[in-house]
Amino acid sequence: MNIIALGPAGSNGHSIARKIQSSIIPQSSISFVDTNDDVLKKVAGGGCIGVVPIENSYEGWVREVVRFWLHAKARPYVIGEVHLPINHQLLVHSSIESVKQVSAVISHPQALGQCRNSLLALGITETQSEKSTSLAAEKVAIGALDPTVAALAAPIAGEVYKLKVLKEHMEDDGDNTTRFHVLGGQPMPSTGKDKTAMLFFAENKPRSLYNALSCICMYDTNMSSIHSIPLGKIGKYAFYVEFDGHIDSGEGKQIMKRLETVTKERIFLGSFPRGEYI
Amino acid sequence: MNIIALGPAGSNGHSIARKIQSSIIPQSSISFVDTNDDVLKKVAGGGCIGVVPIENSYEGWVREVVRFWLHAKARPYVIGEVHLPINHQLLVHSSIESVKQVSAVISHPQALGQCRNSLLALGITETQSEKSTSLAAEKVAIGALDPTVAALAAPIAGEVYKLKVLKEHMEDDGDNTTRFHVLGGQPMPSTGKDKTAMLFFAENKPRSLYNALSCICMYDTNMSSIHSIPLGKIGKYAFYVEFDGHIDSGEGKQIMKRLETVTKERIFLGSFPRGEYI
Repeated sequence: MNIIALGPAGSNGHSIARKIQSSIIPQSSISFVDTNDDVLKKVAGGGCIGVVPIENSYEGWVREVVRFWLHAKARPYVIGEVHLPINHQLLVHSSIESVKQVSAVISHPQALGQCRNSLLALGITETQSEKSTSLAAEKVAIGALDPTVAALAAPIAGEVYKLKVLKEHMEDDGDNTTRFHVLGGQPMPSTGKDKTAMLFFAENKPRSLYNALSCICMYDTNMSSIHSIPLGKIGKYAFYVEFDGHIDSGEGKQIMKRLETVTKERIFLGSFPRGEYI
Repeated sequence: MNIIALGPAGSNGHSIARKIQSSIIPQSSISFVDTNDDVLKKVAGGGCIGVVPIENSYEGWVREVVRFWLHAKARPYVIGEVHLPINHQLLVHSSIESVKQVSAVISHPQALGQCRNSLLALGITETQSEKSTSLAAEKVAIGALDPTVAALAAPIAGEVYKLKVLKEHMEDDGDNTTRFHVLGGQPMPSTGKDKTAMLFFAENKPRSLYNALSCICMYDTNMSSIHSIPLGKIGKYAFYVEFDGHIDSGEGKQIMKRLETVTKERIFLGSFPRGEYI
């Protein structure tokens, strides 16, 4: 079995793929693609599993992933979830001995933003955007840049590219966590401790979201995620929700049946066992 | 009266500030600050008005603005709203005659992302991130870069920095609109056609969002915005809502009173006249 993650090697998705490899599917290989869209498409094509981020505890829903779910013609299924506590490390070339030698930091703009105060506290004001944290680490490693340029990236990036860890946990906010979905080509059977992920389009009238939530809340069902997804016109949204229970359970079937009467369209993404932290 | 907007000159906020200047407060001046946070803080300090983006029709809620509302000790009031259709123009130095001469494009990462397909269709693959679209336009104008580098920025940036417009509406999606809030130091009295903006923290139990929405929906009140705002732990959110009506009206008072019984905390941002497109 092949596990697909966002590349290059050293990404947070790579960490999740390794976890799956070591704990669930030891005979698997890991492959990297350029975008989360490509992960979703590959898994929808069948014959592999994949990992994509779905939400961050500070940033909210992940735009390109939810957009894929909204617009794709062929969709994979969500078959699991993993919570990854974020650790942005300050990674440097082996010749660098101290933070004072660092002239600039490169990373993904979101990582740079999440480490803004830590960087200022270290006296680092020069930053440059890269497409991903792992690409930044790769650039520092291959010596394409001035050796005084550092990268902000995940621990796995430091390991893969053999970089020196100058400082751990550069992120300003504690508890910074990204939740990943594990994707497969077939729906997951019930385990008894499941969640269901779906999107729905509410009707264009007052109370429409309220009416939809009443279907989900009828059994005092816990709703662990809800995000309004803008559809291109101000005030027009789809809703992304996750609620406890499997779609094949009695309650799950009742919820979906009732939603049919008060929403315009529903997209089922998957029922999957509630995940843990790694 | 001074109107504060995100700088440098040539930003979308600058367009909105000019609109206010020409149509409502002709004797006003316009000043620029470095962040949306600074706009909000200045207006909370009194003696001026300000403009900040609150949501985009594709990207959703604006992170740094909603974060300010959540955490600020002193808050201004929302006193108005303006919808701005986005027009990302390809702006170049006057010596450039055609798209074929453009070697690279600089802009804010969001603008680059929103014009991705248009850029590829023109054969432009080299892009570089800048802190804002207007800063990108300024850099092209002052000749700090190779003259074959273009900026993606608002029409007002082309005007302010006297750049040539090589192509209009580079954005891939039509209807791309950003809604701005106008901010003041005092609450706005009722006009009869108002909206109310607020944040609330739901209780940590099933049905809590549903119970809160039931307070807002009791009069068939139209809710024009709803966003879940992540609070740093997966599954823990505040909710940003806008609904029709003024907080001082009979219905507005009832809604707020009922919300007190089913939410942990409420932050009133302002009641303001429903806005129009410019």
